[in-house]
Amino acid sequence: MNVDGHDTAVTDKAGLEVLTREECLRLLAQAPIGRIVFTDHALPAVQPVNFTMLGTDIVIRTSPESKLAQATRDTVVAFEVDDYDEEARTGWSVMVVGVGHAVEDPEERSLLETLPLDTWAPGPRSHYIRIMTDIVTGRRIPEHS
Amino acid sequence: MNVDGHDTAVTDKAGLEVLTREECLRLLAQAPIGRIVFTDHALPAVQPVNFTMLGTDIVIRTSPESKLAQATRDTVVAFEVDDYDEEARTGWSVMVVGVGHAVEDPEERSLLETLPLDTWAPGPRSHYIRIMTDIVTGRRIPEHS
Repeated sequence: MNVDGHDTAVTDKAGLEVLTREECLRLLAQAPIGRIVFTDHALPAVQPVNFTMLGTDIVIRTSPESKLAQATRDTVVAFEVDDYDEEARTGWSVMVVGVGHAVEDPEERSLLETLPLDTWAPGPRSHYIRIMTDIVTGRRIPEHS
Repeated sequence: MNVDGHDTAVTDKAGLEVLTREECLRLLAQAPIGRIVFTDHALPAVQPVNFTMLGTDIVIRTSPESKLAQATRDTVVAFEVDDYDEEARTGWSVMVVGVGHAVEDPEERSLLETLPLDTWAPGPRSHYIRIMTDIVTGRRIPEHS
């Protein structure tokens, strides 16, 4: 992980570098895997998914019968990506909080079908979830001096 | 990632291999970073943390003033670890759902202070959170044939 030559890094009270929205969206666009946080039978749940971006929206494919599909319709969800270097003990994370939206409009669906989004898990994945990046925050552990 | 020579892999309806509780706990104990899911001002939140295990409990250190410390006192939280191989498009994930507990008993605290748990983030981290692994589930994406 590189610090990418920040000139004016802002740190939070825990000493972590605060990432800008632009940097968060850039890191989000490069991450192969994210973790979606939702509620399953009134309990917190978190599931890794591969995903892609359409503009600043997160796009996920899943099975229409999946828990994830059922639990993310017009509901606020969180989404997280990160990358860590265990040896250097550095890393960054980005969290999105936004409304999940089940894609049902045929035109919107056709557009999403053109995206490079093959799911890693086996089986049919005909349901699209789109998450608006309403709140985007990110932190980086500074390199140890 | 290796498939570790499973003889009798059970798969879920999505085609993912279902991991046993024992295997989940083994993977949990080896993961350097996990992601804790909690509620922050009525919104879902997720934060990566380094951690260790005490028996089957997850132990995290943080600052007593942190959001995480405030949001995990006697509350149900989720905790996730995973590992993915982007090239092979395989990977596994383990999710724990359990009660988070702020460690206040001096004896319990002394015990936790003996654990190998240096936090990666800078600053003092005098608050310990202990999470019971009440519900443990895990899935693995099978190797593509």
